[in-house]
Order: sequence, then C-alpha cells, then structure tokens
Amino acid sequence: MTRDIRVNGARLWDSIMAMAEIGATANGGSHRLTLSDEDKSARDRFAGWCAEAGLALTVDQMGDMFALRAGADANRAPIGIGSHLDTQPYGGKFDGVFGVLAGLEVIRTLNDHRINTIAPLEVVNWTNEEGARFAPAMLASGVYGGAFELDWAHSRRAVDSGATVLDELKRIGYHGDAPVHEHEFSAFFECHIEQGPILDAGGVSVGVVDTAQGFRWYDVSLEGFAQHTGSTPMVGRRNALLGMARVVQAVDDIAQEHAPLARGTVGSQVEVGPGSRNVIPGKVNFTVDLRHPSAETLSAMDAALRQACAEAAADIRLEHSLEQISYTAPVAFDGRCVAAVKSACERLGVSHETITSGAGHDACYVARRVPTAMLFAPCKDGISHHESESAEPEDLEAVCNALLHAVLDIAGVVN
Amino acid sequence: MTRDIRVNGARLWDSIMAMAEIGATANGGSHRLTLSDEDKSARDRFAGWCAEAGLALTVDQMGDMFALRAGADANRAPIGIGSHLDTQPYGGKFDGVFGVLAGLEVIRTLNDHRINTIAPLEVVNWTNEEGARFAPAMLASGVYGGAFELDWAHSRRAVDSGATVLDELKRIGYHGDAPVHEHEFSAFFECHIEQGPILDAGGVSVGVVDTAQGFRWYDVSLEGFAQHTGSTPMVGRRNALLGMARVVQAVDDIAQEHAPLARGTVGSQVEVGPGSRNVIPGKVNFTVDLRHPSAETLSAMDAALRQACAEAAADIRLEHSLEQISYTAPVAFDGRCVAAVKSACERLGVSHETITSGAGHDACYVARRVPTAMLFAPCKDGISHHESESAEPEDLEAVCNALLHAVLDIAGVVN
Repeated sequence: MTRDIRVNGARLWDSIMAMAEIGATANGGSHRLTLSDEDKSARDRFAGWCAEAGLALTVDQMGDMFALRAGADANRAPIGIGSHLDTQPYGGKFDGVFGVLAGLEVIRTLNDHRINTIAPLEVVNWTNEEGARFAPAMLASGVYGGAFELDWAHSRRAVDSGATVLDELKRIGYHGDAPVHEHEFSAFFECHIEQGPILDAGGVSVGVVDTAQGFRWYDVSLEGFAQHTGSTPMVGRRNALLGMARVVQAVDDIAQEHAPLARGTVGSQVEVGPGSRNVIPGKVNFTVDLRHPSAETLSAMDAALRQACAEAAADIRLEHSLEQISYTAPVAFDGRCVAAVKSACERLGVSHETITSGAGHDACYVARRVPTAMLFAPCKDGISHHESESAEPEDLEAVCNALLHAVLDIAGVVN
Repeated sequence: MTRDIRVNGARLWDSIMAMAEIGATANGGSHRLTLSDEDKSARDRFAGWCAEAGLALTVDQMGDMFALRAGADANRAPIGIGSHLDTQPYGGKFDGVFGVLAGLEVIRTLNDHRINTIAPLEVVNWTNEEGARFAPAMLASGVYGGAFELDWAHSRRAVDSGATVLDELKRIGYHGDAPVHEHEFSAFFECHIEQGPILDAGGVSVGVVDTAQGFRWYDVSLEGFAQHTGSTPMVGRRNALLGMARVVQAVDDIAQEHAPLARGTVGSQVEVGPGSRNVIPGKVNFTVDLRHPSAETLSAMDAALRQACAEAAADIRLEHSLEQISYTAPVAFDGRCVAAVKSACERLGVSHETITSGAGHDACYVARRVPTAMLFAPCKDGISHHESESAEPEDLEAVCNALLHAVLDIAGVVN
C-alpha cells in the first residue's frame, strides 16, 4: 500500500553529509557562496544524483535547477519540491540543503517502490537564497514570484569580486535558456530547518508552517547634543542614547503586547557618536525589525513604534527620523497544501505543531503564484547561519516522510 | 586706593587673541598639542611676555613654567596663578589660555600701578593638561600633586609619533632643572572657562568654584545570545541591548535622584555586536561616568548602579561585568581662598554664583598640597573642546578683576 511506504532516512542523511563535503569548513560547517566554484561543484553533484534518479534537468535564466520526474498526466504542471544549495560564508550543513535533498529523497523513494504519480514532480534548487555574496536574499525565487526584474537580478554584483550574477552564471556554466517566468508548478513544497528554537524546545519533529511573518524594517536616527559629561547638568541634556534606550524598551514592549506571534527587535547594528566616554551621546543610528503574520497587527505595531519614537524624542528634545526601508507582506500558505502536510503527520503519527516562519524563504516568493506550503524540522537550540548548526537524522526523516505523503496526496497516485 | 584698581580687559583679550594665532585652525579654534612645535611657540611667546613684565622664569623637570614677581616677604612662598597653554586637537581659544593670561594680566596691572605685594606672585603654565597627545590629562600638575611619579610621567608616549614626554621636553627645549616636588606655593588660583552651560544660562559673570566633582568611571559588558530576529520568540531571548537600555535609563534616574549636583552618563563609546539588523544583539560594551562633589553620595550612586546592572542582567539572563576603571576623589577647595574670591566679587559688584567644577583641572591636583580656589567664566552654550568655543570679553575681564582682588587679599599689599 502506498500509505505504508517510507523514505530512506539513512540515504537522506548520507546525501546531506556528502553535499557538506563541498566547501566543508574546519568547524563542521559549509562555505558555498552563490555562484562560486563550490556552488558549481554542489550543483554538479546534485545534477549527477538527479540523472542517476532518472530525472530530466532544466536550468533557467537565473540558474534555477528543475529536475523533472514525469507524471501520468502530462497536462498537469509539476509539483515542485525544493529549496537552495548555497550557504552563508560560515553556514551550516542543513540550511537549504535539507529542502533540496528531501525532494530528491522523495523521488528516490518513489523509484524504489516503482510508484508513479499522476502529476509530474520536480526537485528544485533556487539560486542565491542566502544573499550573502549577492544582495538581496531570495533573489531567483523573487524573480520567479515577480518581486524583482530579471535584468536587475542579473546585474547584482558580488561583494567579493564585483562580478555580476549574469557573469558568474555564465562562468560556472549555469546560465540556462529557460525563461524564468514561463516555468509553471501546480503546487510547491519546501522543507527547511526552523532556524528558531520552538520545535527543539518543544521536542516536536515536524513544524507545519501555515504562515510566514510579514516584516517591516526601519532605520532610525536620534540627534541631540554632545556635551561634557561632567560640566553639563542633567536638566537640559539632550542625550540621544537615552532616547534610544527608551525606543529599545518600547520595541520589546510592543512585541510582548502581541505575543506569542509578534517579534520586535532593535538590531545589533548600532552607531553611537561622537565616541568618547566623557561626552554625552549626541547622535545614535539604529535599526528596528517588527514582524507579525497579520498585516493588520503589523500596522498597529508600526503605529506604536512611531509613537514611542516621537514621545522619546519630544521628552528629551531630540531631532528624530524613522524611515521604513522595507516591507515584506505576511504570507498565508495554501490551505490545501498545509492541510495535506498536517494530515500526513497525523497518518504517520509523528509529533507536529503549526508554526509561523519568522524568516524569509524561497517558498514565500513562490507562494505569490503557486499554492505552497512549508515543513520545518527542529534544529538544535534554534542555531542557524553558523557552522555549529545541527539537526537530528530522525527529525529530518520524519519531516521527509510528511513531505512524501503530502506530495502523494496532492499529486495523486497511479493505481 | 588699591581697592579701586582694575585689570586692563582689552589687553587681556588682545593677549588671548595673540596666543590664538599660534596653531590657529580654519574654523577659529586652536591646535596646540602638548610639546608640539606649536606648544613650543606658545611657551616662547608667554616667556617673552613674562620677561617684558619683569618676571623671572623657572622651568621644572616636567616643563612647567613659573614666572616669579618678587614680594616684600621673601620668606613667604609665592601665590601661584595659572592654568595651561596646550589645547585639544581642535580646541578653542580660551580653555586654559585664559587662566594663564589672567595671571599675567594681574601682574601687568600691578606693574602699571606700581603695587608691591607682601607675598611673591607667580604665573604658571602647567604641562599637558589636555591629555590629548599624551595620556593621562593633568599630567604635570598630577606629578606636582603627588598623583603620578615623575619617571612614569616622563615615559608617557605621544599618540602620534610614540615619542616620550621626556624626549619631547628636550626636543623643544623645555626640560628644566627645577625639581617638581620642591616648588612651593602659599596659595594657588586658577581661572578657567566653565565648559558647562550654567553661568551662561544664568547670565552670571563669575563662578566661585568651591568644589570639584569626584568621579567614578566604569567599563560595563553585557552578554546574551545573538539569534535571528524573526525566528526567535520574545520569550527566552537574551537581548544584551535591552539590558543596556535599562542601565542607560537607570544611570539617568540615579543622577536625577541626586539633583542638581549629580551627573550620570552612559558615554558615547558603545559597541554592539554582532552588527546585523536581523540578529538580536548578543553583546554590548559601554561606559558609565558618575560624578558628585560628595564622596558619600558618589558611593551611594555606585551602589545603585551596581544594583541596576545586576537587576537588568538577572531579568534578561545576561552575563555581566562592571569594572570601575578609575576613581577621582571630590575636591573641596580652600575655604579662605574661596572666601577671598567671593568677597572680591561682592566688593566689585559683579554677578557671581557658587559652582561645582564638573571637569578635572590642574587646580584639583594642586589642591592636594596647596590652599587653592578656582574662578569660572561663562562660555557660550557651555561649548568647549571645540573650535567654536566662545567667551565674552566683559566676562573674562570681570573674572580677572575678581582674581586680582582675591590675590591681593591673600598676598597682602605693601603700603
């Protein structure tokens, strides 16, 4: 019976470890920057595995890789399953890689059991999810989802050499002919490590991701007057750092008021001037990051932030500017795809919980035009973007099994 | 009558302007770093003026300059009057210079009126008050007052060339023979601009300085955990910047509780890591500066700071360290010298107010072994250590007249 089949967890784990050999770092992490020689090697290895699994590879103009397994109904667009193979400069073994190779493991499992699906299936590797070598992140899936223009994406320059995305696609031999926008999916699934502590802390194997946080990013500047710390009375001071302190506390309070889904953070990118221990801070620049899966709540948080900044500035007589530099709308993943994941977990009897993605993922852009869902696996202490990133083979296997059965549910099986 | 004589305000002003020609900056300030070529030129010009006034110059082993006008009683130690001629890299025309040239103006006035004092008088230029080229500040007066050893002071190195104080004293020809510690004064007076806004805001011409703030300086470090701003729930975060925010507010509160004399500031020297807008601050380093003219109150402020740090750290589960890196005891200036300044102001009918020095001055170290007082002149908006530092000729004249009559009071006049 199809319902009894399971992925090969050991094979999935071994593939992840084999991929991690490419660009392996001294401390157990991975260094495979987008369109680098290491990225080319990873793509080549992935392409080889796809060929061994009998898949037909297409590469599009952004270097995205689509490895197709035919379905019984050639008129149905394929169900995409994937993520990304690029990493942070000192990233971990799992971020992105797990999602691509979970897709491959689903195919390998179906091959093992000679199961044919009605809809075609396609394993996907999106180019430049990390954004570490070329800004912004999720570049190719953003082009696919309509967030960025192709020419603009091609012209992004590497922080190291200054070479463009297009230059580097050609250099490593992954500038394909397929037009990005013409590619169609009937559904899309992405597995990923959570990159947060919730599943790990709760001892839960599968996160059923129903939404992704919308987020608003701000640059804030407060300006007072830099004076001597000894000879300037407390009354009449215009201490910009005191203003920042109140905003830092207010941002935390705002997020706490909308617990548990909200997040609010003054980031770790802070400038305080003029830079002397006996001069009152005259100027501070800092950033704010507000997140919530509801656009309405996010707007309320925005209003509260603006009020907190204005009040702090008025009380201390500071000049202030608060500029929203980016807005990413919340994503509600597709109801049917999410339900398929949840049902699969229930049938498999694995521990699972509904979760919101706090970070951006390729699936968030893909969801703009394709019914999409995500599955999260726990990662140790929520640590990611770090060489020490760690996940348990059993959890990855559980997530991959949930993926398999959700995909079979949506794709349909030829009896 | 001696009581009717007044200094020549125009001559005092002109001398200050003439001194400001040496190392003049484009924006109207002065650049005369300690023991630089500009400092040598300033010393030479001052020595020339002293010679014209009939004074006998002594230079000690720290390059301190003492210009003596004999008194009727050769057994009495001279009354010192002075400050410093060195400046910050982009300092103003008045900081220090006013105090040295006010001393010279007192001598010139006495010469004009052929008045002889019973005690000898001596105009003083202390070496390296600013500490900008050689740390620490108030180096030579610190040796005089017993805070620093002579050899240690000689071995301080210039931030620019690495040359020592001794090297540079010899290079510019101001390494004298006179032993620093053998020099005696029967009293010491220092005029200075306030470097704070109190007199300027109050429209008061003369600050009668009866105390100088004690201060405690601290290095503080808070360490939490750097995590993703999106995927990390608010509960369980260990946000080091949130801890700093609470300490910044607490330091302000502590100083406000001991108003109006207390000062409390987290300085403008702040490091926040790891330096990304979408990473929760994992570590912060900052400084704290607490001041009060009462050692007892300053101890109470210290205890409150330690409690605030510990509470913030405990609440957010941060590691914290708070290290006091320096303690400067409060100074109570000499009762008789302060009273002489106050009486002089009253007799002259100039507006005056008792004030605490918030900054350190050469007089603070001299006061360790000599009965001492200070007089402050208002400076515009309290701005100092800046090219735009500004003072009014009328105020400087009023302060210099108060100095003259206080000195005559202490020195005694030959009838």
